[in-house]
Amino acid sequence: MSPSTTPILLLPGSWHGAWCWNEVVAHLVPHGRPTLAVDMAGHGLRAGRPECLTIRPFDPAALATEVSPVATVDLDHAADLLVLQLKQLGRGGPVTVVAHSMGGLVLTRVAQQAPELVAHAVYLAAVMPASGNAAGPYFVLPENDGALVLPALRGDPDVTGALRLDLASNDLAYRQMLRDAFYGDVDPIVADAALGLLTPDAPASMMRGATQLTRDGWGSVPRTYIVCSRDLAIRPDLQRLFIAEADAAFPHNPTSVVTLDASHAPFLSMPEEVAEVVGKLG
Amino acid sequence: MSPSTTPILLLPGSWHGAWCWNEVVAHLVPHGRPTLAVDMAGHGLRAGRPECLTIRPFDPAALATEVSPVATVDLDHAADLLVLQLKQLGRGGPVTVVAHSMGGLVLTRVAQQAPELVAHAVYLAAVMPASGNAAGPYFVLPENDGALVLPALRGDPDVTGALRLDLASNDLAYRQMLRDAFYGDVDPIVADAALGLLTPDAPASMMRGATQLTRDGWGSVPRTYIVCSRDLAIRPDLQRLFIAEADAAFPHNPTSVVTLDASHAPFLSMPEEVAEVVGKLG
Repeated sequence: MSPSTTPILLLPGSWHGAWCWNEVVAHLVPHGRPTLAVDMAGHGLRAGRPECLTIRPFDPAALATEVSPVATVDLDHAADLLVLQLKQLGRGGPVTVVAHSMGGLVLTRVAQQAPELVAHAVYLAAVMPASGNAAGPYFVLPENDGALVLPALRGDPDVTGALRLDLASNDLAYRQMLRDAFYGDVDPIVADAALGLLTPDAPASMMRGATQLTRDGWGSVPRTYIVCSRDLAIRPDLQRLFIAEADAAFPHNPTSVVTLDASHAPFLSMPEEVAEVVGKLG
Repeated sequence: MSPSTTPILLLPGSWHGAWCWNEVVAHLVPHGRPTLAVDMAGHGLRAGRPECLTIRPFDPAALATEVSPVATVDLDHAADLLVLQLKQLGRGGPVTVVAHSMGGLVLTRVAQQAPELVAHAVYLAAVMPASGNAAGPYFVLPENDGALVLPALRGDPDVTGALRLDLASNDLAYRQMLRDAFYGDVDPIVADAALGLLTPDAPASMMRGATQLTRDGWGSVPRTYIVCSRDLAIRPDLQRLFIAEADAAFPHNPTSVVTLDASHAPFLSMPEEVAEVVGKLG
């Protein structure tokens, strides 16, 4: 049994749903801590899908221009939903939150607004911008050189309101880029099953949300960052930049850092290791 | 808190993945019982997808004839996986298993083979054939009149090895039939998100598996059947036939019956009610 009984909530990143945490949850649950993976706003069972991926014959113009049904989902919506999910799981008490990728933005906002709900903030290859910064500009920094996500996007997010992936593409090079971007070290069969469960549109406006961080808010919450050293979606140098900025701003509460020799998706390639790291945190 | 601490495992039916139980799990976890939804063999993160749904231009002949990557998955495979999942969750002790739809076949097989692993067998609008019977013939009985699943299948299962849905169809009548078959009482936005998460191919050979049931095996395990009275996938009269056959064969251990005024997917339309029923079982 784990010495802690604090519940654990797992929050996916863009395009992913609660399903991506299945194997991690399977390894955590037997240890007796209440554990729940949830869908982020606009994702999983809360997703809206564009029609352009089910038009026959395929229409590239629709892929490029159709306004997304999730265009109106922003960081405020996502944070409101996470607060509800935390209160339901924790029954008002604090919860350890593990956020992947873009889920980190939502965790940061909630830990700032309601630090009493977050026992420990765990960022897994996650977006963790400094105070007042939106996520978008980080992705084009030199620290993110070699990342494969931006080249995989289809359509202009200012037109569609979405970060859109052409998940029904039969372009083998494009499909391989998606696998490499997210699932480089994942069993190819599992990687393809995961690609099939992604939602094509992630809300673009979430990327524009920023949160002012304070010492008594986000700065007061214990945090761990799990760096993925072979990540081709958020490059490890960018992950380390997030950590450096956080530690510079809140030196009294430095980030605990764990490194996994993993792609962007250790929840699929090494779920037992992820569960072991998370299960030890308060 | 629930008086029981027996773990709960939730098993989806054909085309569905662990994701379909998300909201039920969210309502169960705060009550303190270890709760886990899993993927059935050939489904969710264990799915294999045919290429025919990502061929551009769309090729109806491929949809009708492509051999499925899950054609080789049968009831033996599915049962072996469920046994592993039960041992991991229950650490060798008994687990309450809730099976939906075709998941019932797998639950029946495992409860017969290893009754010591199953604290309570819960069938939610699930397939529960009598001893030695395969699932297939039940679906064409008069008790299943009006069911919408067989008309939605594409291709010949004897050719493709799959029960195949054309989930990328842009035929509005077909898409409506899928919604009606599975999600008649589900919020339309959630229903469409769920359709997007289904896997197109369910293994056809699973339907052909049968299990000899004995008094000391399956017949010894406490069971509950949750009838869904507005079900258009497995009609309520067929659900009641499963119950009647079970009770005739094992009258010393009759089925506890609960009825929900629900479609085939109460885990989406009334997850709190499902959690309440399940949470009370040992």
